Amino acid sequence: MTAYAVIMAGGSGTRFWPLSRAARPKQLTAILGPSTMLAATVARLQPLFPPERILVVTTATLAEATRRELPMLGAEQVLAEPLGRDTAPCVALAALHLAARDPAASLVMLPADHVISPVDGFQRTLRAALAWAARGQLVTVGIRPTHPATGYGYLQLAEPLPDEHGCQAWRVARFVEKPDRARAEQYLASGVYRWNAGIFAWSLPTLLAALARHCPEIVETLRPAVAAGEAALAVAYERLPRISIDYALMERAEGIIAVDAAFAWDDVGSWDALYEHLPADSAGCRTRGRALAIDSRDCLLIAAADAPDLVAVRCQGLSVVATRDAVLVIPRGEAQAVKDAVEVLRRQGRGDLL
Amino acid sequence: MTAYAVIMAGGSGTRFWPLSRAARPKQLTAILGPSTMLAATVARLQPLFPPERILVVTTATLAEATRRELPMLGAEQVLAEPLGRDTAPCVALAALHLAARDPAASLVMLPADHVISPVDGFQRTLRAALAWAARGQLVTVGIRPTHPATGYGYLQLAEPLPDEHGCQAWRVARFVEKPDRARAEQYLASGVYRWNAGIFAWSLPTLLAALARHCPEIVETLRPAVAAGEAALAVAYERLPRISIDYALMERAEGIIAVDAAFAWDDVGSWDALYEHLPADSAGCRTRGRALAIDSRDCLLIAAADAPDLVAVRCQGLSVVATRDAVLVIPRGEAQAVKDAVEVLRRQGRGDLL
Repeated sequence: MTAYAVIMAGGSGTRFWPLSRAARPKQLTAILGPSTMLAATVARLQPLFPPERILVVTTATLAEATRRELPMLGAEQVLAEPLGRDTAPCVALAALHLAARDPAASLVMLPADHVISPVDGFQRTLRAALAWAARGQLVTVGIRPTHPATGYGYLQLAEPLPDEHGCQAWRVARFVEKPDRARAEQYLASGVYRWNAGIFAWSLPTLLAALARHCPEIVETLRPAVAAGEAALAVAYERLPRISIDYALMERAEGIIAVDAAFAWDDVGSWDALYEHLPADSAGCRTRGRALAIDSRDCLLIAAADAPDLVAVRCQGLSVVATRDAVLVIPRGEAQAVKDAVEVLRRQGRGDLL
Repeated sequence: MTAYAVIMAGGSGTRFWPLSRAARPKQLTAILGPSTMLAATVARLQPLFPPERILVVTTATLAEATRRELPMLGAEQVLAEPLGRDTAPCVALAALHLAARDPAASLVMLPADHVISPVDGFQRTLRAALAWAARGQLVTVGIRPTHPATGYGYLQLAEPLPDEHGCQAWRVARFVEKPDRARAEQYLASGVYRWNAGIFAWSLPTLLAALARHCPEIVETLRPAVAAGEAALAVAYERLPRISIDYALMERAEGIIAVDAAFAWDDVGSWDALYEHLPADSAGCRTRGRALAIDSRDCLLIAAADAPDLVAVRCQGLSVVATRDAVLVIPRGEAQAVKDAVEVLRRQGRGDLL
């Protein structure tokens, strides 16, 4: 059975402003390392999913930039959603496209903007997930929690299943929404909860049958539009609900299988999260680009290639991010407030900076 | 008697890095307001000293930039010192030049980079100082202390003299070096101390006689060199001591007169000092250029015309200064450490930023 990787690359968040922009969101930005997160995601799939078996779904406004970023993919391998409608329509669109080409295939679905290592553990996990998918299961990848995170959904595990490729599998008792701190600590201590990382595997027949059962309006709206072309798709998307694949399908379906991830994972959701991924100097300062921390402690200093040099003197616990046209200064731990800055700039008509 | 203004414009400090640079020090930078501090100093002298009666002394490396900045002055009105040797050689050089042209003239000597207002009080004070100078006195301007500053020299006053142009004059008991905090508080409370602002007035015959008496090596070295031209001046400067006019002359001479300043004065010696001169928003943030303070308190945000936009979110008590090629972040109250940053950059071979 052939397997495809479908990369969800439609994100348009503002949490990495000013490095990421509306026209160049996180997945198209080199937040970490030398390449964009999207290119790193494609590279991480090699050789398990050669380029011809990768599909990328993004929004129409980002399609051209996404195709430029992935020259190893044919233009038709980057699907453009007319509108962002969260992940359920994205999954359905990809499934309908693949079904027209290879109706018995399997697929793994994964986000474009996560940090994952090591690659061999990642690929082994995907092999395990595909093995379960090939047996007609709805499969998700579970990340063993390392701290009582309140920003992720969780999977509650039920009985263990035989492992595949060295990855323990479990029946999933239920999907759990983002918990409060006390509950997150219980989950962490119990050992039977996993983070829901948004990485899934299904065979196409299983996926399409499950979509038809649990969210029929999405498949019924999209199926004729995919056949009819771009204009019909735009009309169809206007009518679709904004809903995640977790909520539309995985939380509703019975008998989900979770495969334990054989890799470390982070969705790197903010400047504060990025700090953890960079090497520190002896005073806990972490820099990228031409940035200099003098008598400073625990600072994150990021200078884009075309930005001014950054110099922090006697600073403590600050994040500073410089680009050619904007500089952000914000205390570490406050990174969720970056969106406030973006909102103020929007209201002031400074779309040129967004 | 004709009076000239001599502006000392040879400063090369680094305290306003990254806005000021080696090739564009504080006096050639628009730290406050739309024009450079040097141009503002020339403007503040009008109409009391029309351009043809102004002399500017700077170092050879800054002479061209200084002449460009002051197109209303003839090129010969900008004197270039081959080397910076503090203010005593600077005063002697200006005095010898003026004596060759108008030996009976008087002069006021003043720095190029101070903030002074109002202009009418300033000019009235200079008139008073020149009136005393015309009677053959060595005259300094005293600033009534507003706080127990430890960064300035002080004048201790003796008996009062008749006022001139509404400015009280005093005999000076002595010049005092920068005091410690306890002594500065005593000086402030006593009412008989003034800050020494480095603004002086003399007639040329009085000044040259006093220089010949108190620091003859300077005048004797310079007099033949001024007559002989540029190469001789370079040789002479190599042999001159680095010494201030306060130390070489004013602290040694008897019978100094101090005139009370009828203006507010600040030498604006750092980013911290600049903060006091800018209008504050409701949260105490002060900005210049395209800079935005969001949920921030007591910050100084300075963006040069060609700098990226500055955005500070939830920051407190920070100074941030952005230019096209460098961004400085430093807590307020730490501005004296800017020199550390400059020194590190110098050691790293980043002269391009200095």
